[in-house]
Amino acid sequence: MSSVLINAEDMDAIALGGAFLGTGGGGDPYIGKLMAQQAIREHGPVTVISPMDVADDALCVPVAMMGAPTVMLEKLPRGDEALEALRQLERFLGKKADALICIEAGGLNSTIPFAVAAATGLPLIDGDGMGRAFPELQMVSLTMHGIKATPLVLADEKGNTSILNTVSNLWTERLARAQTVQMGGAALIASYPMTGAQMKVGLLHDTLSLIKGVGETIKSERDAKRHPGDVLTRRFDGRKLFTGRVTDIERATTGGFARGKAIFKGVDAYAGRTFSIDFQNEFLVAKDGEGRLLATTPDLICALDADGGLPVTTEQLRFGLAVSFIGLPANPQWRTPAGLDLVGPKYFGYDHPFTPVEALHP
Amino acid sequence: MSSVLINAEDMDAIALGGAFLGTGGGGDPYIGKLMAQQAIREHGPVTVISPMDVADDALCVPVAMMGAPTVMLEKLPRGDEALEALRQLERFLGKKADALICIEAGGLNSTIPFAVAAATGLPLIDGDGMGRAFPELQMVSLTMHGIKATPLVLADEKGNTSILNTVSNLWTERLARAQTVQMGGAALIASYPMTGAQMKVGLLHDTLSLIKGVGETIKSERDAKRHPGDVLTRRFDGRKLFTGRVTDIERATTGGFARGKAIFKGVDAYAGRTFSIDFQNEFLVAKDGEGRLLATTPDLICALDADGGLPVTTEQLRFGLAVSFIGLPANPQWRTPAGLDLVGPKYFGYDHPFTPVEALHP
Repeated sequence: MSSVLINAEDMDAIALGGAFLGTGGGGDPYIGKLMAQQAIREHGPVTVISPMDVADDALCVPVAMMGAPTVMLEKLPRGDEALEALRQLERFLGKKADALICIEAGGLNSTIPFAVAAATGLPLIDGDGMGRAFPELQMVSLTMHGIKATPLVLADEKGNTSILNTVSNLWTERLARAQTVQMGGAALIASYPMTGAQMKVGLLHDTLSLIKGVGETIKSERDAKRHPGDVLTRRFDGRKLFTGRVTDIERATTGGFARGKAIFKGVDAYAGRTFSIDFQNEFLVAKDGEGRLLATTPDLICALDADGGLPVTTEQLRFGLAVSFIGLPANPQWRTPAGLDLVGPKYFGYDHPFTPVEALHP
Repeated sequence: MSSVLINAEDMDAIALGGAFLGTGGGGDPYIGKLMAQQAIREHGPVTVISPMDVADDALCVPVAMMGAPTVMLEKLPRGDEALEALRQLERFLGKKADALICIEAGGLNSTIPFAVAAATGLPLIDGDGMGRAFPELQMVSLTMHGIKATPLVLADEKGNTSILNTVSNLWTERLARAQTVQMGGAALIASYPMTGAQMKVGLLHDTLSLIKGVGETIKSERDAKRHPGDVLTRRFDGRKLFTGRVTDIERATTGGFARGKAIFKGVDAYAGRTFSIDFQNEFLVAKDGEGRLLATTPDLICALDADGGLPVTTEQLRFGLAVSFIGLPANPQWRTPAGLDLVGPKYFGYDHPFTPVEALHP
């Protein structure tokens, strides 16, 4: 049985790695880090355990933030909504959770579960449901393995809660999103309650370790005055997409999402060219000025500040900021027909078929 | 102890009376009648009991349709959603209901509880939460008496359900309405679980008997070839507002409501004048062509077909239809400052103060 103790100092790397693999979404790493660190300092370190070490009949529960990350910047979580969501779910199921799960990578969604794990003393499972971040609730490997998103509990900072039971994970998304919008654009959830046996098959394994490793790389490269883009691109067999300065940014927080498009003027090796990135919480599609596809969902489009090398979330994009974009191959499950049905370009309304980032940049 | 057995034939009068006091809302009387009659024929008659005969510790639960009545015309309830909502609420509370309640008057909302009462064998309490219909969930006498709308269960015809727990009845309305919209514009609810002791204070008493009496009057007057408007106006110390033909009708089903405005050209004694009626599920405000107020929420604006004498709901308004409008004084609770805060003209965005219909037509 292997387990790792995560203390407050480790949260720096986890928040950074989560924000990088969160592909622009999954929330602000600074807020998430502070929440988790405060909980760990108060309650003690968090035990992260391997998925294979969880009992088959254990109750495993992901906890997460749902909504537009732009909203979370202004409407800080009170801190105990996620715990309240978990407690309500336990009462509804008549059973206590044995382990917690991160639903996705992201500055907030890789760190909030640590805060809840610290407060409850529950272990956190080394894995997640995406290997990146996606904007909608049904967009998890769990859906492909027939695991139901409900019963799901939604909680806001005012004390309102909702327990959903739905006929499909797409219906969960629709009903939970509508409530999230009413709750002010962001809410905390406990969802996808599953057995250890289901988790072992449905979850992507060892991705918390991966996130921590990515964060440590970003920190050590920055300490060595190197930009972390090179080593991260090599590590994931990714592709550099472009480096550019934001010249135009359109964004709207609508329907419970932060949606928009940014235009970039290339710098350095990319000078003289323009580029565009579309996003819905996460970066979805990167193109050059001639409309040629550079990378597309479900492959990861990761952003680092071109100067400092820190991850950049969509809500941090602003006029003049220079950003380096890197395309990484998605987990192979997302490139299957079932995966592309859930998160491929067509689902998001695009005409282009999915083409792997390696094929776009041979 | 007084109780009345209601059989399938009685549902004719209850649906008619409910539609009349439903002031244009509360759903179509024909669909509601059929649903209740089918359930009574299958399971036997329904016992209606006096509020004062209910034990103080009994669990009393209103069941109702929520949403835009226009939608219910096209999206018929499957029939067991209200029962499913009740069963889920019972499971959540860990307690069986002892009696059911009608939340409001209306063609559907005075009859659906009979269908559920027949199917469960539970008695129905002689009373309701409005003495008319209002469009929003918090607009009940129960709110004025501090009774919480939650836990509330919402169920749709597909099998989706939601259990809400909120910090106020206004928050219940906001969250339940958002889900109702996602569920296709209409859903069935079990809400305001209360003790018999709370019910005795919070509910308007004996209004089911009143509704049945109104329906019987409409039937007997029609049988005698008389228009029921005269006798109903006298019975409630009401005022005839006008009789006119629809010349313009604007309507939209938005935000989970049927909203709109109808313009009428006066006929008979009202020839040569024009009139307007605003509605949000229910008729809210009646004015003449010069903008003079004829009746305003919370007083009842009831509509009868000018020729046949049957109640007219907002969704039945169509070009050329001749309608007689009658204004009735609202239950005195609605005319208090607390009542006007919930359902007065200001809440609905109007500038005019509330003026009783008797004062507008001395």
